[in-house]
Amino acid sequence: MPLDPVLIDTLRGISTATLTMQLLNRGIRRSAMEGVRPLVPMKQRLVGEAFTLAYIPLREDLSGYAVLGRPDYAPRVAIEQAPPGSVLVIDARGEASTGIVGDILVARLRARGVVGVVTDGGLRDVEATVPLGLPIFAAGPAAPPSISGLSGAGMQGPIGCGRVAVIPGDIIVGDQDGVVVVPKALAQEVATSGAEQERLERFIQIKVLAGAATPGVYPADDLTKSEYKEWLAAGEPKEW
Amino acid sequence: MPLDPVLIDTLRGISTATLTMQLLNRGIRRSAMEGVRPLVPMKQRLVGEAFTLAYIPLREDLSGYAVLGRPDYAPRVAIEQAPPGSVLVIDARGEASTGIVGDILVARLRARGVVGVVTDGGLRDVEATVPLGLPIFAAGPAAPPSISGLSGAGMQGPIGCGRVAVIPGDIIVGDQDGVVVVPKALAQEVATSGAEQERLERFIQIKVLAGAATPGVYPADDLTKSEYKEWLAAGEPKEW
Amino acid sequence: MPLDPVLIDTLRGISTATLTMQLLNRGIRRSAMEGVRPLVPMKQRLVGEAFTLAYIPLREDLSGYAVLGRPDYAPRVAIEQAPPGSVLVIDARGEASTGIVGDILVARLRARGVVGVVTDGGLRDVEATVPLGLPIFAAGPAAPPSISGLSGAGMQGPIGCGRVAVIPGDIIVGDQDGVVVVPKALAQEVATSGAEQERLERFIQIKVLAGAATPGVYPADDLTKSEYKEWLAAGEPKEW
Amino acid sequence: MPLDPVLIDTLRGISTATLTMQLLNRGIRRSAMEGVRPLVPMKQRLVGEAFTLAYIPLREDLSGYAVLGRPDYAPRVAIEQAPPGSVLVIDARGEASTGIVGDILVARLRARGVVGVVTDGGLRDVEATVPLGLPIFAAGPAAPPSISGLSGAGMQGPIGCGRVAVIPGDIIVGDQDGVVVVPKALAQEVATSGAEQERLERFIQIKVLAGAATPGVYPADDLTKSEYKEWLAAGEPKEW
Amino acid sequence: MPLDPVLIDTLRGISTATLTMQLLNRGIRRSAMEGVRPLVPMKQRLVGEAFTLAYIPLREDLSGYAVLGRPDYAPRVAIEQAPPGSVLVIDARGEASTGIVGDILVARLRARGVVGVVTDGGLRDVEATVPLGLPIFAAGPAAPPSISGLSGAGMQGPIGCGRVAVIPGDIIVGDQDGVVVVPKALAQEVATSGAEQERLERFIQIKVLAGAATPGVYPADDLTKSEYKEWLAAGEPKEW
Amino acid sequence: MPLDPVLIDTLRGISTATLTMQLLNRGIRRSAMEGVRPLVPMKQRLVGEAFTLAYIPLREDLSGYAVLGRPDYAPRVAIEQAPPGSVLVIDARGEASTGIVGDILVARLRARGVVGVVTDGGLRDVEATVPLGLPIFAAGPAAPPSISGLSGAGMQGPIGCGRVAVIPGDIIVGDQDGVVVVPKALAQEVATSGAEQERLERFIQIKVLAGAATPGVYPADDLTKSEYKEWLAAGEPKEW
Repeated sequence: MPLDPVLIDTLRGISTATLTMQLLNRGIRRSAMEGVRPLVPMKQRLVGEAFTLAYIPLREDLSGYAVLGRPDYAPRVAIEQAPPGSVLVIDARGEASTGIVGDILVARLRARGVVGVVTDGGLRDVEATVPLGLPIFAAGPAAPPSISGLSGAGMQGPIGCGRVAVIPGDIIVGDQDGVVVVPKALAQEVATSGAEQERLERFIQIKVLAGAATPGVYPADDLTKSEYKEWLAAGEPKEW
Repeated sequence: MPLDPVLIDTLRGISTATLTMQLLNRGIRRSAMEGVRPLVPMKQRLVGEAFTLAYIPLREDLSGYAVLGRPDYAPRVAIEQAPPGSVLVIDARGEASTGIVGDILVARLRARGVVGVVTDGGLRDVEATVPLGLPIFAAGPAAPPSISGLSGAGMQGPIGCGRVAVIPGDIIVGDQDGVVVVPKALAQEVATSGAEQERLERFIQIKVLAGAATPGVYPADDLTKSEYKEWLAAGEPKEW
Repeated sequence: MPLDPVLIDTLRGISTATLTMQLLNRGIRRSAMEGVRPLVPMKQRLVGEAFTLAYIPLREDLSGYAVLGRPDYAPRVAIEQAPPGSVLVIDARGEASTGIVGDILVARLRARGVVGVVTDGGLRDVEATVPLGLPIFAAGPAAPPSISGLSGAGMQGPIGCGRVAVIPGDIIVGDQDGVVVVPKALAQEVATSGAEQERLERFIQIKVLAGAATPGVYPADDLTKSEYKEWLAAGEPKEW
Repeated sequence: MPLDPVLIDTLRGISTATLTMQLLNRGIRRSAMEGVRPLVPMKQRLVGEAFTLAYIPLREDLSGYAVLGRPDYAPRVAIEQAPPGSVLVIDARGEASTGIVGDILVARLRARGVVGVVTDGGLRDVEATVPLGLPIFAAGPAAPPSISGLSGAGMQGPIGCGRVAVIPGDIIVGDQDGVVVVPKALAQEVATSGAEQERLERFIQIKVLAGAATPGVYPADDLTKSEYKEWLAAGEPKEW
Repeated sequence: MPLDPVLIDTLRGISTATLTMQLLNRGIRRSAMEGVRPLVPMKQRLVGEAFTLAYIPLREDLSGYAVLGRPDYAPRVAIEQAPPGSVLVIDARGEASTGIVGDILVARLRARGVVGVVTDGGLRDVEATVPLGLPIFAAGPAAPPSISGLSGAGMQGPIGCGRVAVIPGDIIVGDQDGVVVVPKALAQEVATSGAEQERLERFIQIKVLAGAATPGVYPADDLTKSEYKEWLAAGEPKEW
Repeated sequence: MPLDPVLIDTLRGISTATLTMQLLNRGIRRSAMEGVRPLVPMKQRLVGEAFTLAYIPLREDLSGYAVLGRPDYAPRVAIEQAPPGSVLVIDARGEASTGIVGDILVARLRARGVVGVVTDGGLRDVEATVPLGLPIFAAGPAAPPSISGLSGAGMQGPIGCGRVAVIPGDIIVGDQDGVVVVPKALAQEVATSGAEQERLERFIQIKVLAGAATPGVYPADDLTKSEYKEWLAAGEPKEW
C-alpha cells in the first residue's frame, strides 16, 4: 500500500532537525545517519519509503565482473524492483571509498519513479550523475566500482546504514542536515507533532529576531505558549 | 553433510599465516578478519563450518529487553540451531563496545556441541565466560548487553565480520594470529597445499636455525627444493 | 559523607555486565567506558566514588615542565585531595598516546587510600607501576609524560571519560570487562536489583550447564521464575 | 576590557596560514583546530575573543528535553551572556553527529552582537541557519539536537575544541582554511609580525608570478630582503 | 621522454570511474586514492605523469623554520625540478591537518608548467591558492605549515598517497570522483579499452534514458552489443 | 662505527618514560611511537641503532608471490644486511592487519645478531615467532603475508614508524611502555641526564613510599634536591 500523500506532504515540511527531536522525545535517540550527506542539489526535502539493499565486504570469488550480469544478483534486481515513490537505501557498511551507484543505474531508478538513493558508501561518476537530478545521499564521491570493495548480499531485509537501523517500509527523510529514519509505526504521530513544533518555532524565531531573550521563550514557557496561541488564532501570515 | 574429519584435522595443523598465503595465491586477498582476536586460551586451532548470525545498529523500539524473550528472535534461535561442530560467526558491524554473548549463552553453545564463537563485537562477562573454555574470538571485553547497541536481524545469510565476507558453510580457522575464512569450495585444495607448505617451512626453518642465509632458501629455489625432497625421503623426524 | 560500606560490598558482588543491563532497564544506555581496560591484575572488583580531574589538549605555553611544580596545578592538587576510598577518574580526552600517571603518583595515591585510577589516556612506567598493585584502568601503556600532549584544566567538575559522563560522586565499578559509571542517585536501587539478577542468573546457569535449552529459561518465564523461588527457598548452596 | 579595535583590524588582515607559522616560530605547534570548517559564506575573516562553553558525553538523566528549559543550564546561559564582539567556542568533544546550535540560538547570538560560533560538534538546521549570515565553524551539518549526544557542563573554563586548547579570552581567527587560536598574551606580537610576513609574501608572490625561482626568494635570503625593503620604500601599490 | 599527447588526450576523455573498472579487470583493485578530493574547480580532467615527493612525520630538530631555506631540502628541490606536464604527487602520510603547499609554491609550479598537485595532506591558504587555477587534490584545507607536522624526506622514489602506491612515471588522472593511479605499463591498454567502455556506456545510457530495463542492457548481452555496433556504424552523434 | 657499549648500557637503565621527558625538555615532543607494543617477553630493555626499511601500499603488480624471491627485493636485502647490534625498524604505514615478518625471517635476524624488530605493521606466526626470543614491537598479531597489503620500497632512508620519524642511526629504546626514538645527536646527552633523573626519582619514590606528600618533592624543590645530594653522598644502596 503506497504511502499516504498527505503524510508525505506533511513530512516534507518538517526539517530533519525537528524530526530527530520528535523521535528523541519518543525514546529513539539513534535516527540520523552518520557520514551520509546530500551530493545532489535538491529543490525540496526527500521523503519516501525505504526499499533496502545489503552489501557485505568484498570476497574476490563473489565480486568478479561477471556477477554484475547475473539476473539474480541482488543489487541489479533491486534496481528493477524498488517501487515508484520509494527510496533505495543501500547498506555499504560505511565503505566510503567504494562507489555504489553511477549514472546509468541512477538514470534507470529515476525512470522507474524511485525518488532517491541513500547509502553509506560512495557515489561514482559524480559529474555524469548529479545532472540527472535524482536526490542522492552518500558518503562522498568515489570512483571504484562496487565490486572493488563489496559483494551484493540481499534485498528487503533489515539493514544498517550510517549506523542507523533501517527496516523496509520505514520513512526516509533527507535534507541539507542529512538523512533521518522514521520508524513506520511512528510516522503519522511524528508528522503531526513535528508540524506543530515547526509552527511554534517560527513564532519563537519571530520573537528572537525582534530581540527577545531565549529564557522562557525557547523552550517556550506557559506565557510564551499562550502568546503563540493568540498569534495562531490571529492567523499565521501565509507568506512564511 | 558434516565436514570431513580428515579435512578438519589437516586444517587444524595449518597456521592462519600459511592459510592467508595459500588463499592469496588463489586470488583471495581478504581472508583474515580485522580487529578480532582470541579471548580464551586454546589448546589447539579452532576449525569448523560457519553458522552465521547478523545484527544491525540499535533502534530503541527493536532493542528493548522484551525482545530477548521472543522465540523467533534470530540471535536466540541461532543459539539453539547452530549444529554440533559449527562455529557461530556473528556480524556485529564492528561495534567493539557492545557485548554480543556472555557466559550463559556460551555455556549453552558448548553444551550443544558448537566448537567456537567469532564476532567483530565484544564479549560480556569475561570473568565467567573464559573458564567455560569454548574458543571465542571477538573485538575485546565489553560489559553492555547486545541490545544496548545492536538489533538482531537474521541468520544463515551472507555476512561480513571483521571486514571479511562469510558465507554459511565457509570454513573458519582461528589461532593466536586471528581468524581466517576459507571459502568452502577452496577448502580441500588449500588444506592439501597448505600442509605441504608447512612441511617445507619446517625444513627451511631447520636450515635457517643452523645458520643458512635466506636467499635461495626462503623462498626455496630448485636446489633447496631438491634438498627438501631428500630430507622428506629420508623420513621427516616424528618428534617435530 | 563516605559511601555506605554495605552498598560498596553489594556492588562489588555484581559484574559490570549485570550493571549495564540494570542501567539500561532504567533508561541509561551509555554507562560503559569505551577503550578503557584494566592494566593491573585485581583480586576483586574496583568500587568507589568518582573524584574527577580534567585535561584539555596541549598548548605549549601551558604544558612546560615548570607547570608540574606549581602548587595550584590541578593534576597535582587532585593527587593530594582525592579522599580515601575514592577512585580518581581522569578525562584525558581519549589521548591514548599520552601517559597520565606513573609510578610515583600512583604510589602517592595508594598511600593516601585512593582505591583506583581510571582514565581514557595512557599509563606511564608500566613496569614500575603495576607492582604497586593499585587497580588502574587506562587506554594502554604510553611512555610520554602528560605535558607532551595535554594540559591540566580543573578538578571535581563534570567530565567525560571513555565517552561516558562522570559527575563527582558517581559510583565507579571496574572488572575484566571494563569500567561502568553508576549515577549516584541510582546506586542503591541498581545494587539491590543487580544482586537479585546475579542470583537468578546463577540459577539459570546451573540449569543450562545441566542441559536446559535457553527458550523460557533465559530470560526466565513464569515457570522458570517459580522454580527459581523454590531453589532460593531451599537455600542457595553457600559454596557458589 | 574589550579587545583593541586596531588589533582586531590587523588580525583580520592576516591569513590563518600565516598565523600558524608565526605561532610555530614562537613554540606553539598546536594552534589550528582539526575537523572544524566554515559552514557559512563569509565576507571577511572572523576575529574575536573566545567565550567558552563545555559539553560532556550524554547521560540520559542529564540530557532530557526538560533540561533545555532550566534557567541555569550552561548552554542557555552562555547564549545570553557571551558579550558583544566575542566568539562562542563550544567543546562538543568532537561529536560531529550531534547538532550543537540551530537557527533560533544563532539568531539570538547575532542579535546580541556575538560575532561567530566555533565548535567541533555539528550544526543543526543548516538551511535555516546559513541565511542568518553569522560566521559558523563546525564539524558539518547534523540534524540531532545537542541532548541526543551531549550534556551541557559549564562555561568560561578552559576547554578543548578540535584538539586545540582554548582559554577564555584567547583570540579566535577563522577563514577558509579553518580556525586558529592565538593565546591572548601573544596576540599583539603575532599580529605585528604576521602583518609584516604578509607584506613580504606579497612581494615574493609578485616575483614568483613574474617568473622567479623559489630558492633564495622563498624563504627570502639577504638579497631578496634588501630588494623587498626597496620595494617597500618605493611605496607598496595600494590596489593589491 | 614526455608522455604521448594522444595518450594524454584519450585518458582525459575517460572518467576515473571507468579507469578503476578497467584496472580491476586487469587485477588492480587498489587504484583510487582515499581521502583525497579536488579543491580547485577544473575545466577538464587532470592527466599527467607522477613526480613524487615524500614526507615523514615531524621531528622538531628536522622541521624548524630554517630547513625551508636549505637549497637541498627535498620539498623545495621538487618544486624546481618537477618537469612541465607532470603532476606533483606528495606523500603526506595522510596528515590531513598539515598544510603541504600554499599560494606561493603553487604559483611557482604553475609558472614551471606542472599541471597539477595531488597530496593526502592539507592545502594552505585556500583563499589565495584556488584563484591561481592549478588543479589541486588534497585532504582538505589546513592552515598549519608543513613543518608543523611533517619533515621532507626525499623525492622521485616510490611512495604511498591516499593508501595507493605511486611509482614515478605512473599516470595520474583526477576528476570530481578523485584521483586514480594508472601504472605506466598499463596506460596505453587501459586508455584504449577505457575509451571503448565510455562509448558503449553512452549507448547504454541512451537506451536507459529511453526506458530500457537494465537486465541484458547493463552489462550488455550479445543482443545489446550488436545493437551497439549498429549504432556505432550509423555514426555516433558528434554533439554528445 | 658501532655504538659505544657504555652508552648502550646507560640507555638500557633508563625507562622510555624518562627518555620522553628528557627529549621533551630538549624540544622533541614526538618521540614515542603510537600503536606499537612489545609482543615478545623481554628480560631487559631493547637498545640499538636503527636500520630502516620502508613499505608502500600494495599494488597487485608489485606484490605478487614471485617478488619475494628476487635477490634485490628490499625487504629481503635488509634481512641480510642489517648489522649485528642494530634494530630493524620497518615503516609499514600503520597497516596493522598486514603481517610484516614471521618466524623464519626473525630466526635469520637473530642468527645475524640483529637485536630487535620494530614495526607499525603486524607480526605473523606469533605462536612460532615468540619462542625465538628476539624482542619484537609491532601493532599486534596478523596472519596475512606482507604482500597482501604492502610492497617493499627501499631501505636505509628516513622513514616514519608509529607516527615518529626515524633516521638510520637513531637510537631505538623499547620497554613495556613501547618504543622511543632518540635522535643520534642527542643520545649521549639524554643518556647522561636521563640516568640522573632515574636516580633522583628513585630517591623521590623512597620518600613517597615512606609517606611524603608530592608538593615540593615531585618535582623536587631546592630542599628536596639538597636532601637528595646528601642521600647520594651517603651512598645509594646497591640492591636497588
